[in-house]
Amino acid sequence: MQKAAIVGGGVIGAGWAARFLLHGWQVRFYDPSPAALEVVNRVVETATRWVPEIYDHLPPRGELLIASTLAEAVAEAEWIQESVPERLPIKHATLAEIQTACSAEAVIGSSTSGFMPSELQQDALRPEQILVAHPYNPVYLLPIVEVVPSAVVLEETVQRAEALLSDIGMKPITLRAEIPAHVGDRLLEAVWREALWLIKDGVATTEQIDDLMTHGFGLRWAQKGLFETYRTAGGEAGMKHFLEQFGPCLQWPWTKLMDVPDLDDELISRIVEQSDAQAAGRSVSELEAERDANLVALLKALRSENAAAGAFLNQLAANDD
Amino acid sequence: MQKAAIVGGGVIGAGWAARFLLHGWQVRFYDPSPAALEVVNRVVETATRWVPEIYDHLPPRGELLIASTLAEAVAEAEWIQESVPERLPIKHATLAEIQTACSAEAVIGSSTSGFMPSELQQDALRPEQILVAHPYNPVYLLPIVEVVPSAVVLEETVQRAEALLSDIGMKPITLRAEIPAHVGDRLLEAVWREALWLIKDGVATTEQIDDLMTHGFGLRWAQKGLFETYRTAGGEAGMKHFLEQFGPCLQWPWTKLMDVPDLDDELISRIVEQSDAQAAGRSVSELEAERDANLVALLKALRSENAAAGAFLNQLAANDD
Repeated sequence: MQKAAIVGGGVIGAGWAARFLLHGWQVRFYDPSPAALEVVNRVVETATRWVPEIYDHLPPRGELLIASTLAEAVAEAEWIQESVPERLPIKHATLAEIQTACSAEAVIGSSTSGFMPSELQQDALRPEQILVAHPYNPVYLLPIVEVVPSAVVLEETVQRAEALLSDIGMKPITLRAEIPAHVGDRLLEAVWREALWLIKDGVATTEQIDDLMTHGFGLRWAQKGLFETYRTAGGEAGMKHFLEQFGPCLQWPWTKLMDVPDLDDELISRIVEQSDAQAAGRSVSELEAERDANLVALLKALRSENAAAGAFLNQLAANDD
Repeated sequence: MQKAAIVGGGVIGAGWAARFLLHGWQVRFYDPSPAALEVVNRVVETATRWVPEIYDHLPPRGELLIASTLAEAVAEAEWIQESVPERLPIKHATLAEIQTACSAEAVIGSSTSGFMPSELQQDALRPEQILVAHPYNPVYLLPIVEVVPSAVVLEETVQRAEALLSDIGMKPITLRAEIPAHVGDRLLEAVWREALWLIKDGVATTEQIDDLMTHGFGLRWAQKGLFETYRTAGGEAGMKHFLEQFGPCLQWPWTKLMDVPDLDDELISRIVEQSDAQAAGRSVSELEAERDANLVALLKALRSENAAAGAFLNQLAANDD
């Protein structure tokens, strides 16, 4: 059985534990806080409900062991995933402790959303063993993971990381340039900042913005990204034509992105009130269950859609003959 | 049979025509260009393939009539949808011609993405009859439509517009403030601008950005928007706690939103090359068919997911007892 160590609980670490476990790995979990145990048990229970629905075949479930020391967790691990709090001194101390106890052959992935790999590698015993493997919540369902090595990480290590993450059902995106916050969170921050302005200025509510996503471009992006969507919309005139048309829009004073909104008490209160109204009494557990059921339904639906598209294309071609 | 007039073809006008038609309306279509006829026929054929899959019950299909004059198209229409090119003098001339021939009881919706309703209403015969009804491509499948009245539009008219758009399977979002580009396109522009920087700076390719969406936050936003996603992720600590944690991030130099990227020839060429590689030989027709099959699969899946979430919550509650 392949062995993974999960260092640092919370929702992200627990999500990693559940993903490895349900894909047949032995998982050794370490977090000094007793509260983390409760989180990992809850997340594993939830993931156990949903993950098998997505796959026709899953390997037999692995085993979850709770380690009493960090050294015990990482000693035999092939993959070590670090998900401790997002402060560099804590990351450095944890990585140092991991490296004194783990195999030089292991890969150490960090769940960091903000730090670059070269920052994590500073003063490390074996910097070439550390890379960013940044997942998105819920880790047990969303396939995406950003892999960011730095120049000191060997290509062989990157390929091993990609293969291993693919084996546990993920879609690794390897980024060859280091920038703070990688790629996904930059796109999210762009939307977030503009959304804050729209609420602050009283143009839209949280529910209206969410509805625009769930009934509009969220549906687009669940199955074709930004660029493929525009390529498709551009039609036979092609991507170049589309882009040339789009150029002038960038000079229009549409967004307020040039300025950073002040997330003051008034704006926080407004968002909280609107979000409460939108939830209409649903608890976070209910929202989570809705989310997970939806994600499973979407992942299953997308797996089986291509046959339909192919049949329609054949029919169109036959009509043209 | 209820009657709609579609003024201005192209992909958007044709999408409106297909949506009304498949929801049982008589559609009178007018566009001075003969090429528009080909587009509307193709889009109606495509929509006819996909739209019935989403619904258990659709009314009997309406009829599509090609009007030879604008006056003939709009004379008896209850809803008139204007989708002419995005230039204000063309919009004004078209709206003036529409208003000389249509009933004062009709609602005139404009598909404009950039103009505010009060701009469209300038010097109009009956400004109170004109509002923005901005859809998203493909109009026959994506439910979202932004409804933007201005202060001169009666509340009764807004409610009639909302009811009528809901009847043809749409999700109207009524915005009470007028801003250029409404809400959805502002969020899209935010993502677009940041994505251009990431490509210009060589951090990610079009395919990587698209993969991040289709395997990551696109899946999130197809079923829970930005705010509900964060509310859920924030857990029991609540939305306020989540927002207070997020505050400092806005000061970090993550995105390059403060600056507008120059969409010059070099950047256009780079995007075109990457997009070509990503398409891997698939034609726009193939991409469209993939998109539509996917959207249908997603819409069907989301319609039937809530039972699963409810059952799991009941099970959790039973375990807790």
